[in-house]
Amino acid sequence: MNNQSNDNEDKFKIIISVGDESGIGPEIILKALFSKEIPYNLDFIIVGSKNNLENTYKNLKSLGIKNIVDPNNYQIHDIQIPFEINKQKKSNGNASFFYLKKAIEIVQKYTNAALVTGPICKKSWSLAGHNYSGQTELLAETCQVKDVGMLFTAKSPITGWRFNTLLATTHIPLCDVPKKLSTQLIHTKLDLFAKFCKTYVNKPLLKVAGLNPHAGEEGILGSEEKDWIKNAVTTWGNQNKGVHVSGPISPDTCWNSSSKAWRDKTAPTHDGILAMYHDQGLIPIKVIALNYSVNTTIGLPFIRTSPDHGTGFDIAGKGIAQSQSMVEAIKAAFDLTKDSRLFNAH
Amino acid sequence: MNNQSNDNEDKFKIIISVGDESGIGPEIILKALFSKEIPYNLDFIIVGSKNNLENTYKNLKSLGIKNIVDPNNYQIHDIQIPFEINKQKKSNGNASFFYLKKAIEIVQKYTNAALVTGPICKKSWSLAGHNYSGQTELLAETCQVKDVGMLFTAKSPITGWRFNTLLATTHIPLCDVPKKLSTQLIHTKLDLFAKFCKTYVNKPLLKVAGLNPHAGEEGILGSEEKDWIKNAVTTWGNQNKGVHVSGPISPDTCWNSSSKAWRDKTAPTHDGILAMYHDQGLIPIKVIALNYSVNTTIGLPFIRTSPDHGTGFDIAGKGIAQSQSMVEAIKAAFDLTKDSRLFNAH
Repeated sequence: MNNQSNDNEDKFKIIISVGDESGIGPEIILKALFSKEIPYNLDFIIVGSKNNLENTYKNLKSLGIKNIVDPNNYQIHDIQIPFEINKQKKSNGNASFFYLKKAIEIVQKYTNAALVTGPICKKSWSLAGHNYSGQTELLAETCQVKDVGMLFTAKSPITGWRFNTLLATTHIPLCDVPKKLSTQLIHTKLDLFAKFCKTYVNKPLLKVAGLNPHAGEEGILGSEEKDWIKNAVTTWGNQNKGVHVSGPISPDTCWNSSSKAWRDKTAPTHDGILAMYHDQGLIPIKVIALNYSVNTTIGLPFIRTSPDHGTGFDIAGKGIAQSQSMVEAIKAAFDLTKDSRLFNAH
Repeated sequence: MNNQSNDNEDKFKIIISVGDESGIGPEIILKALFSKEIPYNLDFIIVGSKNNLENTYKNLKSLGIKNIVDPNNYQIHDIQIPFEINKQKKSNGNASFFYLKKAIEIVQKYTNAALVTGPICKKSWSLAGHNYSGQTELLAETCQVKDVGMLFTAKSPITGWRFNTLLATTHIPLCDVPKKLSTQLIHTKLDLFAKFCKTYVNKPLLKVAGLNPHAGEEGILGSEEKDWIKNAVTTWGNQNKGVHVSGPISPDTCWNSSSKAWRDKTAPTHDGILAMYHDQGLIPIKVIALNYSVNTTIGLPFIRTSPDHGTGFDIAGKGIAQSQSMVEAIKAAFDLTKDSRLFNAH
């Protein structure tokens, strides 16, 4: 266990916003920080309610859970947001919104730091008057960045291969997906993806999933691939010779190679897949890499990661939440920053 | 290897249509029938071009492939469809269409028989003037059945658990999915699914996936779940006390339990998941059960299965096609029929 009470300007800093406090955020943070997998040479700054973190600690201890850290040994940026009686969701939504705002402010103060965010409840944000489709949108707005990407990344514990899936569209209703997609959007996402991957490999191998069943099967099962997606991928590939890009690939087989590379060291690998919509990307990610997958925002002036699960309201307070994804989020925030050109860059 | 030249009225019959002959259909049939996993007490009737099957056999032999059967040892219902020079796709589409028509006719002649279909190319069917969105639709029309279901089923070689996913919508463009879904459709599919599952278990446990990211997250990411899907599932559950049904479940975690049950004998199991659209169901099926998954049509007067992959035009003739899914299709056609009330019923 690291004693994190001393702030050291030189050490790499991980800023953690606790997310929605009626969910499992505080619990998985206290569990994750206990993990032996967390690099020892990091400083942590937790942004949230100190009181709530202490209560979570006491509750977990009373349940007999030993493998947790004491929040008093950590630097907590304590924020007290007024709590409205009988409006728990709204109050927690408001609190988690301002924790994130403050965490963004802090991470930008340091030259070598990354941000890890606990899960929030979009409905609660909305009830509190914060109308964002997710934390990513607030991050982009606050950092005044036009184009960001929601990337899910997981490092296989079996092969060491890093499995990356970027979403072209994110938290929107399924019926809006075909309308939202465009050549411009695909190109922007491929630009972001290529830039990200090039900080790790020389010539990234990217795949683009189709939108329709069998990628439209020559126009029979949907026209988008034939009308413009195929052309968008080819055009981008011609303009980016430093990247090997293929697609649109039939969505239902597009992740088969990821599944193999996750388990088998001898299988061919790839650097990333661009999914057209949330569940197209998230379903294979969770089936292949459950508990190892991390939500990363690319395109920001710093690396931001978060666990790949939600608030877990149904299991909060019971002590049974799995912290592996938070562990991976912290590890990935550090790994992705130190290995990339972004390190010390902001 | 079974010698299948004698037709025996009492033996269980598997009728196999070869599918598109420019694809891997004929190859995987000759490979699959050699497999030791195929039950020995079955009669096979292959519907296709005898000439093409013989040529496939010779080609595979010339490539040094030994683990294949000689089609001359099997009963072939030989059909010669006129071939149009320079219109290969159209000709093959026309042939595969009539092979299936004939195979349906044959399977209905026998009291104990099931149908296995090789993969076809919908584009080629369309070029030949056969406008169906898939083989399933032709099967329903030919058998004069109003409601059929496209079920993907796979038996785990690790745990023996059978993993079933039914599609609410099938081969349609993604943009049409939200318009096509209705309470009526969900109820019809749940009726079919429950009827199917009840031939194997007393009180099936069914799950229904949501349509939108996080199943709409209380209306924030899509309104269908809140507006009617939740109500449709609850209503159906109230009318069908012999089935345990839950949903709509967040699509990106809905198949996590399937992944666990596939690998771990101690994990909780379920009898089936109803997916809202093609790739929502097919992506997890292929990631979890690649090469073991079988496409089954439920609601017909006989069991029909097919491998879960396409024509494989890019690898046809090379001898490298995997026949495991065809082996599973044959095994499942037999297993699902002999274990169910459908056996001897038509």
